[in-house]
Amino acid sequence: MAKITKVSPLAPERFPDLPPIEGVQFATAEAGVRYAGRTDVMLAVLDPGTAVAGVFTRSTTRAAPVLDCQRKIGGASVGPAAILVNSGNANAFTGKHGERSVSEVTSSVAKVTGVSEDRVFTSSTGVIGEPLPHDRIVAKLADLTSELSPDRFEAAARAIMTTDTFPKGATARVEIDGKPVTISGIAKGSGMIAPDMATMLVYIFTDAVVEQSVLQDTLSRLTDRTFNCITVDSDTSTSDALLLCATGASGVDATKNAAFESALERVMLDLAHQVVRDGEGATKFVEIRVTGGVTDADAKTHGLAIANSPLVKTAIAGEDPNWGRVVMAIGKSGAAADRDLLNIRFGDILVAENGWVSSDYREEDAAAYMKGQNLSISVDLGLGNGSATVWTCDLTHGYIEINADYRS
Amino acid sequence: MAKITKVSPLAPERFPDLPPIEGVQFATAEAGVRYAGRTDVMLAVLDPGTAVAGVFTRSTTRAAPVLDCQRKIGGASVGPAAILVNSGNANAFTGKHGERSVSEVTSSVAKVTGVSEDRVFTSSTGVIGEPLPHDRIVAKLADLTSELSPDRFEAAARAIMTTDTFPKGATARVEIDGKPVTISGIAKGSGMIAPDMATMLVYIFTDAVVEQSVLQDTLSRLTDRTFNCITVDSDTSTSDALLLCATGASGVDATKNAAFESALERVMLDLAHQVVRDGEGATKFVEIRVTGGVTDADAKTHGLAIANSPLVKTAIAGEDPNWGRVVMAIGKSGAAADRDLLNIRFGDILVAENGWVSSDYREEDAAAYMKGQNLSISVDLGLGNGSATVWTCDLTHGYIEINADYRS
Repeated sequence: MAKITKVSPLAPERFPDLPPIEGVQFATAEAGVRYAGRTDVMLAVLDPGTAVAGVFTRSTTRAAPVLDCQRKIGGASVGPAAILVNSGNANAFTGKHGERSVSEVTSSVAKVTGVSEDRVFTSSTGVIGEPLPHDRIVAKLADLTSELSPDRFEAAARAIMTTDTFPKGATARVEIDGKPVTISGIAKGSGMIAPDMATMLVYIFTDAVVEQSVLQDTLSRLTDRTFNCITVDSDTSTSDALLLCATGASGVDATKNAAFESALERVMLDLAHQVVRDGEGATKFVEIRVTGGVTDADAKTHGLAIANSPLVKTAIAGEDPNWGRVVMAIGKSGAAADRDLLNIRFGDILVAENGWVSSDYREEDAAAYMKGQNLSISVDLGLGNGSATVWTCDLTHGYIEINADYRS
Repeated sequence: MAKITKVSPLAPERFPDLPPIEGVQFATAEAGVRYAGRTDVMLAVLDPGTAVAGVFTRSTTRAAPVLDCQRKIGGASVGPAAILVNSGNANAFTGKHGERSVSEVTSSVAKVTGVSEDRVFTSSTGVIGEPLPHDRIVAKLADLTSELSPDRFEAAARAIMTTDTFPKGATARVEIDGKPVTISGIAKGSGMIAPDMATMLVYIFTDAVVEQSVLQDTLSRLTDRTFNCITVDSDTSTSDALLLCATGASGVDATKNAAFESALERVMLDLAHQVVRDGEGATKFVEIRVTGGVTDADAKTHGLAIANSPLVKTAIAGEDPNWGRVVMAIGKSGAAADRDLLNIRFGDILVAENGWVSSDYREEDAAAYMKGQNLSISVDLGLGNGSATVWTCDLTHGYIEINADYRS
């Protein structure tokens, strides 16, 4: 991947305080998979009985570790579980060699940690098409296992970074029947971000008790309105994976609990937004809200068409309130729209109403608004009750620099 | 639109010699619609009996002139016809005002030229959302009409340019039953190019005799494998329009004639390629050929996914043979693919076969190949007989400069 330059201007001030989740321990190591002088392997070990749910890229060229995880998700929540992640090499498009690497890593993790191999989940992120030097990872497993500690969220978030400019974490706490449940998660992702599921790699942990099939249902539903609503560059990764692990250590049953779901959604959305804020070359964070669609799906199609349009994204980079490009993106999306019913707002500024520029619109107001770092574009289609919100960033010289000016 | 800087490095050496088409006359004028110091209005008048076929953007936010043309196409080929095009203002998203402008222009053209209003076709290209100052165009109609001349193809091609850096023309001659038929056309287009029909504005003329419904069928079929196979930035215009006019002046019946169709396809493809070669910021012209698809449509979906991928396009800009990104784009396209059957070539260099990097592949060969200006990427899906070829350009700092650094 490209060299990492300065930290995104949209980065949060600091990594949040993530309280440890009882039943979850982490360790990281420098295995030298591709990068030198930084950690590139993360091991998480989960207490016996932890329920693990997962969603993965729907790419038809998905990577070997993704295929292996998909086979394992949904098995019985018996015994401990483990997650092993490396950065620097995606082990994608590596044929039989890729499958052998996954097998070597998962069987070695099983042997060293005592976790059953069908409960060992792996992810790999980085360059595509090169064989994974799995021996370098296997060589670190004994050290990793001896150093496991619950209080290592930030180190774990750093070990899984590739072109990311900051580590990403989020947490929420919710009371159920007067007893606290905690949810904490980490993510990586910066380019190749148009998740058809979850973006790149995300690991969320909770001490709640949730039965695996319910956990999976909840995760899939919330993914559709969090990670599946962000895009940096319309390019979907071969390696997207999101694992949600409920250790049950709190003893609090959160099955189908609304407060728990809401807290989980907050954590997922926070992590998803951080991925956009670390979008390659990003200088603006943009929320696009579409209402009045025939269906929610239609509204989302329009939202993503706007969010993925290079002309909209370059206009935002240029601080240009070019609402004509928003109209263009709606027009091309393929979803239902009536040109003469469209209302468009930049922030609170009504730009266009009923198919033409608003009579109150003053270009200088919108131009001033566009200078902000956090922008909102609202479109009302005027057709029905469907709505959706998606998030993206601008398209700048920084994106070209990261992806064209340096050899991968 | 953005300011026009230097001519595209992919431009042809010069505008081709386009022989006049009997029955077609042009005139151009400086109406000051938006630009100063250059022509911005083009009038073409076509002899009585000319058959006019057209294909238009499928955008749901299409512009008033497009809607007007769509209503008129398919009428009887009786009496003369006229085409009036302005650059600088797209008359798109202009509500009732836009319809009034079209009506003012078409009725004025009818009055001045003696063409029936239902045979007057107009196009507008340029900024979206501003009212068209149609009076400036109407004021030039008498002069335009008095200056009509058959030998003005290049002037016509120049008058319809917006961010184009060179005028675009193409011609072909074919003999039918020993008698010559000529086809000549002009086009404009540079950004907002992902035609869902034809790109931006294209006007093709022939002296062949072709019945209107046959002309329309032929045009629609050929458009699907020419203009609908190019993309600069995945953004579809509100104003795409392609008119094909058969004056019949040669007296040669080309109805359903294979040689005529083939010549017409060559002209269309030549113009389509010139649009890509003038893609905003383009430095490389890229042909993407996909074979082995389950269907032709699947092959085209994969081809366009590769051609529209910002990561593929920036890799090409960086002369990086990053075939992993090609794999990614295939994976995300939504069409059928089997990772382990993929073969990928850059030019003649076999990069990947059967799902992994070829054993013969040497990165330095591919890196040398990528330094060329005209590149070819071939993907064999290994699934069936479906195939498609699409054309695109790279994504460079130039694109960002044109669309972000300058206010529209």
